[in-house]
Amino acid sequence: MKYLHTMVRVADVDESLDFYCNKLGLKEVRRMDSEQGRFTLVYLAAPGDEDAQLELTYNWDPEVYDGGRNFGHLAYEVDDIYETCDRLMKAGVTINRPPRDGWMAFIRSPDNISIELLQKGDRLPKQEPWASMENTGTW
Amino acid sequence: MKYLHTMVRVADVDESLDFYCNKLGLKEVRRMDSEQGRFTLVYLAAPGDEDAQLELTYNWDPEVYDGGRNFGHLAYEVDDIYETCDRLMKAGVTINRPPRDGWMAFIRSPDNISIELLQKGDRLPKQEPWASMENTGTW
Repeated sequence: MKYLHTMVRVADVDESLDFYCNKLGLKEVRRMDSEQGRFTLVYLAAPGDEDAQLELTYNWDPEVYDGGRNFGHLAYEVDDIYETCDRLMKAGVTINRPPRDGWMAFIRSPDNISIELLQKGDRLPKQEPWASMENTGTW
Repeated sequence: MKYLHTMVRVADVDESLDFYCNKLGLKEVRRMDSEQGRFTLVYLAAPGDEDAQLELTYNWDPEVYDGGRNFGHLAYEVDDIYETCDRLMKAGVTINRPPRDGWMAFIRSPDNISIELLQKGDRLPKQEPWASMENTGTW
């Protein structure tokens, strides 16, 4: 038995790829269009960690995507949480839970999927502007 | 960057471990209780694939967990999809989407998280009772 992927639905492929790839740093590993099913599947993974995938499902006929409390979040380990959050913030992503502790941050995808970022190895020394940055919204 | 886990919230730890471990076949790799935060975290993984984890969050103060359409499912590869579904069915789990094609099945967790099971390698030859088994509900 082996973990393959977590699937999330997205309302806009371009906006989602901009978020998950250009901003968060995942890369596209596979894509499939189904004319018959009227959907597109895009598989993403962290570079070098291609076995654990995120599947984006885009249904060509639009739906409203509500966020359910049974689903929590996706979590990724990053090499430098300050650098990652700085890059995301400069790209226009809200850091809902800034890495005040040098260890943990939360952001949200365009479809409101909560994403946890965790520092690899030991937590980093506290550092401004992060240490005194307030939370924004929920995650 | 590396995938760590997908987190889902659960309303009952015992019921969830019975489902995810005894029935689905994951195993517990780590557990943490927080008296201060009043929550329990249980980390599960497929045996031999411990890096890609499922995190169960149990909040000691109960909440109602609705299912949101932005989250899709978790997917696991299995060695023999008929054997897996037979085992699950005998354990009382509804096979919402039976593996009619020898390749794909869907079940749901006690908290309504949709779980996809995919046959490892090539699809298996069609086989009864699966080939003519109807869908049940949605997934």
